[in-house]
Amino acid sequence: MSKALEHAQSQARAFRQQLHDFLRIPSVSTLPEQAGAVREAAEWLADNMRRAGIQNVAVMPTGGHPVVYGDWLNAGPDAPTVLIYGHYDVQPAQKSDGWHNDPFNPVERDGKLFARGSSDDKGQMFAHVKAVESVLQTEGRLPVNVKFMVEGEEEIGSPHLADFLRANRDRLAANVCIISDTAILSEEQPSIIYALRGLSALEIVVTGPQNDLHSGSFGGAVHNPVQALAEIVAQLHNPDGSIAVPGFYDDVLPLSDEERAELKKADISAEEWTRISGTPAPWGEPEYTILERIGGRPTLEINGMAGGFYGDGIKTVLPARALAKITCRLVANQQPQRIFEQIRDYVQQITPPTVRADVRYLGGGDPALVDIQTPAMQAAIRAYEKGWGQRPVFMREGGSIPIVADIQRELNVPVLLMGFGLNTDGAHGPNEHFTISMFHRGIDTSIHFLHEIVQES
Amino acid sequence: MSKALEHAQSQARAFRQQLHDFLRIPSVSTLPEQAGAVREAAEWLADNMRRAGIQNVAVMPTGGHPVVYGDWLNAGPDAPTVLIYGHYDVQPAQKSDGWHNDPFNPVERDGKLFARGSSDDKGQMFAHVKAVESVLQTEGRLPVNVKFMVEGEEEIGSPHLADFLRANRDRLAANVCIISDTAILSEEQPSIIYALRGLSALEIVVTGPQNDLHSGSFGGAVHNPVQALAEIVAQLHNPDGSIAVPGFYDDVLPLSDEERAELKKADISAEEWTRISGTPAPWGEPEYTILERIGGRPTLEINGMAGGFYGDGIKTVLPARALAKITCRLVANQQPQRIFEQIRDYVQQITPPTVRADVRYLGGGDPALVDIQTPAMQAAIRAYEKGWGQRPVFMREGGSIPIVADIQRELNVPVLLMGFGLNTDGAHGPNEHFTISMFHRGIDTSIHFLHEIVQES
Repeated sequence: MSKALEHAQSQARAFRQQLHDFLRIPSVSTLPEQAGAVREAAEWLADNMRRAGIQNVAVMPTGGHPVVYGDWLNAGPDAPTVLIYGHYDVQPAQKSDGWHNDPFNPVERDGKLFARGSSDDKGQMFAHVKAVESVLQTEGRLPVNVKFMVEGEEEIGSPHLADFLRANRDRLAANVCIISDTAILSEEQPSIIYALRGLSALEIVVTGPQNDLHSGSFGGAVHNPVQALAEIVAQLHNPDGSIAVPGFYDDVLPLSDEERAELKKADISAEEWTRISGTPAPWGEPEYTILERIGGRPTLEINGMAGGFYGDGIKTVLPARALAKITCRLVANQQPQRIFEQIRDYVQQITPPTVRADVRYLGGGDPALVDIQTPAMQAAIRAYEKGWGQRPVFMREGGSIPIVADIQRELNVPVLLMGFGLNTDGAHGPNEHFTISMFHRGIDTSIHFLHEIVQES
Repeated sequence: MSKALEHAQSQARAFRQQLHDFLRIPSVSTLPEQAGAVREAAEWLADNMRRAGIQNVAVMPTGGHPVVYGDWLNAGPDAPTVLIYGHYDVQPAQKSDGWHNDPFNPVERDGKLFARGSSDDKGQMFAHVKAVESVLQTEGRLPVNVKFMVEGEEEIGSPHLADFLRANRDRLAANVCIISDTAILSEEQPSIIYALRGLSALEIVVTGPQNDLHSGSFGGAVHNPVQALAEIVAQLHNPDGSIAVPGFYDDVLPLSDEERAELKKADISAEEWTRISGTPAPWGEPEYTILERIGGRPTLEINGMAGGFYGDGIKTVLPARALAKITCRLVANQQPQRIFEQIRDYVQQITPPTVRADVRYLGGGDPALVDIQTPAMQAAIRAYEKGWGQRPVFMREGGSIPIVADIQRELNVPVLLMGFGLNTDGAHGPNEHFTISMFHRGIDTSIHFLHEIVQES
């Protein structure tokens, strides 16, 4: 195994150059015009996996963007099988969003690699490919059977992956699934996520007059749809930051005292939080700590809002319509569709008769809780200790990987969330980056995991 | 005079074709990239005025877009001088806003001429040019002296016209100023505006985090700037539709009982209003009639709002910033700058410490009241009676022509608002149009006015 670690070290530069090539492909899954680039990223990854020694590599069709599959199954029937999940699609990005470099032209600076997808999730996922490559190149074999399943629709809610899992249950059968698509506590302090938030996405469209109107000829006697939408949106939260939608918290599995004690170990001060988030002050439910608000509590986020004229200058228009896009982060045991229905009913109820509101469901994913007692978790703890040099702490993650719940349900395997990123990586914003040393520590940790998991089986 | 009217009738088609050419020039004053088109519209108009027999035509520079000036001053020193104001610039428009035709490719359909600027104000203003042309071509002279002043910055608040008036007081000296840039009550019922609302324009920018954030990693512990802006905007009005900004109504000159009685003559039912505006129901201060809300009361209109992601699909972003653009319509004796300051102070006061709000003044114009007893008003009444076939009623206009207050103040002349449009013309929205018969009746009314005004002097 030391040879594999040495190999990874000697190939560090080459591995990063390959990652640069991967990041150059703008595989933005939400943009129809980038469908070709998404496909190109899948083909690139498949080719790289083949060169790494991974077998049976295939770009497998789905109802949307394809899944890249590959395996190495020569460890024997008694050895455990590890399924590695990741995604090769990325969020939209353009330089004008505030990037210092073209988001699809990777730049290394100050020990960081800047590019869209560097952390979420091309970089983190690629660490496992390079770990498997390092072991195969030096040991000629893996101590366990390994399967890769890398999808291209994670950033749009993985609409076709549950079907893919059902259709390929035998091919994907495994003893444990690992995912590296999360942040750890700090560069020096790894952490293991045992809970993920789910998602419920919707949009509200408020319409008033049939056309945009002259604000002088109509203003004062027509309810402005942008104003009406603002008035609706302002009623979605209570003054203390909790969500005002009736029934929203009904299904929430409360945090246990033990969990709250465990989460306190990793908690963060208000000062540190304002620094990390770049905000004037923390916000949110006062009876919960910052980490509890992110990991243990559901949210209702306004992802965007638009209506009327918002360019330079003045346009004295009374707009005909306004739009708000909303995603809720859910915790166990909330259900995406039910949450949507509660919001829809509440919005309809608070919409005055002077405008119309349409509320539309855009998709969702279940929240997930992972049993922290599973033996595979012990292997992960030791892998981090050896690969990272520090024992990990347990955390709840505020983000959503809807596929975790799907994999647990469809394949009946424990899912381990072994993050290699940081929540300061700018995952969905401008200047997303991946700390270069964490990419390499991730490869080392993955190499250790492939060996540690054997002893737990 | 009957020859002038006959001439206008015989040239109806040619006059409209000229107007089409004028409307084809996309003179959008707010868009820097259309500065060339604005200039082209000025030159086109100057050329058309010269062909009409108007003298001393010049495209005169200002600090921004030019003013087109022209006159005919051979009626003698005892004849009155009429100053005709209009504007050749237009609001932005693109087909994707919901137009049935290209907004700069005029189409005549169902007795209407569809194009941006057809009603506001190229078409209405052009009626006077064609009236003067018809009189000059048939009578060889005008009964009065006439001056034209047609500006190119009305849609951006006429930032350079007050300076222009001051610098050209002698050249512009007149006994009365007429403006056709307003709506009349209906196609068959002309009306004269004796009050105009002023304008105060501003924008609010709310910022929270330094960058867009991942809604999963930060949501629940960061105050979302789009949500915060919605919460601020929702506090600008009271539930009854009145404005919640402290002091906002302090300077409002109340409507007199006589005015309210006069305005009632032209008032409109809730059913008619919902039809005209295309809204589900009327809105606004319940203690005022619909026409009072529009003409006699100030407003605070959200012209637009934008922040975060509002495209198709889902983007789980927590945006860093959000913008709202606001224009207030003011009534006598409110002051634009003071209104801005009241809003700014209130917004700062209600902004929570979890975000920052910047409030910026974009410009404004004073409201105006015109004395309905002035003799020139009697000439206008008779001109409508003869040109339109119906005695006009008196109305307050909700729109703003800031220049009216400027002209009254700088040139010390009464300003008559002789509208030829309808408030269903879609002035600032898609499918703006001008009723063709009203264009021709406007020419006739202007011909009559040029003769009637002599008898009042």
